[in-house]
Amino acid sequence: MAFSEFRPLDEKTLVDYVKAVPALSSKLGGNLDDLTIKEVGDGNLNFVYIVIGSSGSLVIKQALPYIRCIGESWPMTKERAYFEAVTLKEHGRWCPNNVPEVFHFDRTMSLIAMRYLEPPHIILRKGLIAGVEYPLLAEHISDYMANTLFYTSLIYRSTTEHKKAVAEFCGNVELCRLTEQVVFSDPYKVSEYNHWTSPYLDEDAEAVRNDDGLKVEIAELKSKFCERSQALIHGDLHTGSVMVTHDSTQVIDPEFAFYGPMGFDIGAFLGNLILAYFAQDGHAVGENDRKNYKEWILKTIEDTWNLFRKKFTALWDKHKDGSGEAYLPAIYNNPELQLLVQKKYFEDLLHDTVGFGSAKMIRRIVGVAHVEDLESIADPSKRATCEKRALYLAKMLLKERRKFHDISEIVSAVRNVQ
Amino acid sequence: MAFSEFRPLDEKTLVDYVKAVPALSSKLGGNLDDLTIKEVGDGNLNFVYIVIGSSGSLVIKQALPYIRCIGESWPMTKERAYFEAVTLKEHGRWCPNNVPEVFHFDRTMSLIAMRYLEPPHIILRKGLIAGVEYPLLAEHISDYMANTLFYTSLIYRSTTEHKKAVAEFCGNVELCRLTEQVVFSDPYKVSEYNHWTSPYLDEDAEAVRNDDGLKVEIAELKSKFCERSQALIHGDLHTGSVMVTHDSTQVIDPEFAFYGPMGFDIGAFLGNLILAYFAQDGHAVGENDRKNYKEWILKTIEDTWNLFRKKFTALWDKHKDGSGEAYLPAIYNNPELQLLVQKKYFEDLLHDTVGFGSAKMIRRIVGVAHVEDLESIADPSKRATCEKRALYLAKMLLKERRKFHDISEIVSAVRNVQ
Ligand SMILES: Nc1ncnc2c1ncn2[C@@H]1O[C@H](COP(=O)(O)OP(=O)(O)O)[C@@H](O)[C@H]1O
Ligand SMILES: Nc1ncnc2c1ncn2[C@@H]1O[C@H](COP(=O)(O)OP(=O)(O)O)[C@@H](O)[C@H]1O
Ligand SMILES: [Mg+2]
Ligand SMILES: [Mg+2]
Ligand SMILES: [Mg+2]
Ligand SMILES: [Mg+2]
Ligand SMILES: [Mg+2]
Repeated sequence: MAFSEFRPLDEKTLVDYVKAVPALSSKLGGNLDDLTIKEVGDGNLNFVYIVIGSSGSLVIKQALPYIRCIGESWPMTKERAYFEAVTLKEHGRWCPNNVPEVFHFDRTMSLIAMRYLEPPHIILRKGLIAGVEYPLLAEHISDYMANTLFYTSLIYRSTTEHKKAVAEFCGNVELCRLTEQVVFSDPYKVSEYNHWTSPYLDEDAEAVRNDDGLKVEIAELKSKFCERSQALIHGDLHTGSVMVTHDSTQVIDPEFAFYGPMGFDIGAFLGNLILAYFAQDGHAVGENDRKNYKEWILKTIEDTWNLFRKKFTALWDKHKDGSGEAYLPAIYNNPELQLLVQKKYFEDLLHDTVGFGSAKMIRRIVGVAHVEDLESIADPSKRATCEKRALYLAKMLLKERRKFHDISEIVSAVRNVQ
Repeated sequence: MAFSEFRPLDEKTLVDYVKAVPALSSKLGGNLDDLTIKEVGDGNLNFVYIVIGSSGSLVIKQALPYIRCIGESWPMTKERAYFEAVTLKEHGRWCPNNVPEVFHFDRTMSLIAMRYLEPPHIILRKGLIAGVEYPLLAEHISDYMANTLFYTSLIYRSTTEHKKAVAEFCGNVELCRLTEQVVFSDPYKVSEYNHWTSPYLDEDAEAVRNDDGLKVEIAELKSKFCERSQALIHGDLHTGSVMVTHDSTQVIDPEFAFYGPMGFDIGAFLGNLILAYFAQDGHAVGENDRKNYKEWILKTIEDTWNLFRKKFTALWDKHKDGSGEAYLPAIYNNPELQLLVQKKYFEDLLHDTVGFGSAKMIRRIVGVAHVEDLESIADPSKRATCEKRALYLAKMLLKERRKFHDISEIVSAVRNVQ
């Protein structure tokens, strides 16, 4: 067989691969010598090909044993494709409407074939930069988060199922270490990878590296990230891992998945929305001051959390007599107690969410990988103004998060930054 | 080979086993037909044989596929012996003075051969009931806890080593589930296994089952137990898992070991000392009012925590430039910050310790397995008085633990219970 061992594909060899795999060729139909193949990987790590045939299409994603945007000098296990495929299937099982279907996985080739999210699907981040409203976004993403996180947690699962799954995902350690480095470490120390809008943010970057209060808090969050196996999290749920149309929301790219703290996913999403919010002033032109759009982002933040909480609670109530081992029905056996327990649960989860979300914002301003929302603001002084506001908020929230009890208070804090 | 598959041994077949294993026969020396073999398993789960030969001795512990004190009606994987052996070796590596040496492990037979802790070693719990002071106990047990917990945590280890070890110990899930049931669940619900000093504690047991505040807190602790892989904990560190003489302290029986929260071990030990303290009034006879002995127990509680903290801190400072990934030296790079971070670390750990310790006390009074300290008080009304005090304290501490900042405040709270 031509593909009995790993080899990186290109537009040409991909055709041979598709021909050799019936599950794929049958999807595309007709004359396989007439495929349209286009590499579109705008992400940081992998190669992504859109393959269009006479009667069907698909996307093929391949992991190479290094980080694409850096090159072979930064090796990274291609086994990440395995964890991505397992997670796409597991999350897809619990939330099929918001995760692309996996057609085929080849561990040897570190290759996933999945549904092509056809136009007008675009990466959410691009839509946010363009100022496009997605009226169903909060509804959809809260569905995704509530279902994937609830069903992979001990509220739904037995300890036996949980520990088995936790053990397997311990194997995705290289990707966890990458997050540890870029989110929890590099921004707080001198690192060759860090950069920021210089000279405007020179002092701000230095202040982050010298802020003892921040370092105490980031240590707590890092230990939660490393030690707390609360649910199968996506692990990289920023607005660049979501594809949208007016009616559809699809979560892609869970290669960083592992059993970690739920707040890391929810925080990633909300933190990136906050970055999008602060970037708007840099995108305002003439008439279009983006004021209404900023309000829509804030509303989406608030709705996302509130809908998440509502849906997660509904799942909890629905399955409260099931085989989940965290809250046994014989103990949590009256409605007031159920309310009390859930109140505490979401209070703690909001604090985690705000903490992780803030950490994600900080690292996007003074760490290695920035966001296009801010990078695309051409005027550096304008960009720096946006970044300073986001950084100010993130530092405050990271340190003071336990004082917040409701998402509306977070939104007010965002709004109050000038 | 006679032992190519599992079979339960007895005093007779044990001789054949020892003869067949050179590592064992060579330890015992001389005429192997003249061995003295005695089954001494007073524990709940396994069989333990003391084997004495002409020029040496050893202990052989075998796990059967059920819980000994209940019988074959409660099956329990014999693989627990594997996790016990791995942990004895790992903990022994970091604290050889306080862990018996493993001579031989046979996974097929679920059999561990280890150093015989010869007389005058006795189980610490028995010494506490007899009112014997062990002046080095706090010194030794704090050595054990500081070394085993520090060296298996992310303060010392890399994420890669950590996740690998976590994954392996996910395999000890049956023992974790047993703890979940008997510590975090059964006492808070009606269970056929629960019992208490009836009728004296009937209302108290019912109050535990109806205490919503307690149930909210026990849920948080249970989720920490199930989700937080902080270090390789012993998992059953009560005073019946420690053997002592005036000069020696040895920790045995880590079959419940897994990567869990450190406070579960420290709390188990301190909680059982508190039970021993409250039991003393039931053992006072005539002249010997046990007043001084109670003071020694309180001092041992305080010393154990303070010495643990001191030693753990010293290890942390010693290895702060090592390969541990929780606190990178480039970030935690000044003495004030190091102090700040450690202060928070031990504050959180004290709260965990008090929480888990209280949960362990509660389950020993109204759950399935009680402690000899209290059970050996023949007069049930006297026993009930001791138990009510312990239960009162444990409930208060479990709910109010976050208000305590120092072990001396805990000791005062113990002392103030009348
Ligand atoms: N199923 C899909 N359908 C359409 N486009 C996709 C699909 N998966 C990925 N893409 C495109 O490829 C880009 C990179 O994919 P991604 O999975 O994020 O890779 P990386 O891991 O390298 O970040 C996405 O930003 C998106 O534009
Ligand atoms: N290494 C040893 N040396 C001497 N006695 C031991 C040793 N190990 C166990 N024992 C004795 O056997 C008893 C039961 O051992 P333990 O390991 O606690 O078994 P279990 O898992 O059944 O509780 C202990 O209480 C102690 O009296
Ligand atoms: Mg991506
Ligand atoms: Mg990716
Ligand atoms: Mg024992
Ligand atoms: Mg035991
Ligand atoms: Mg460093």
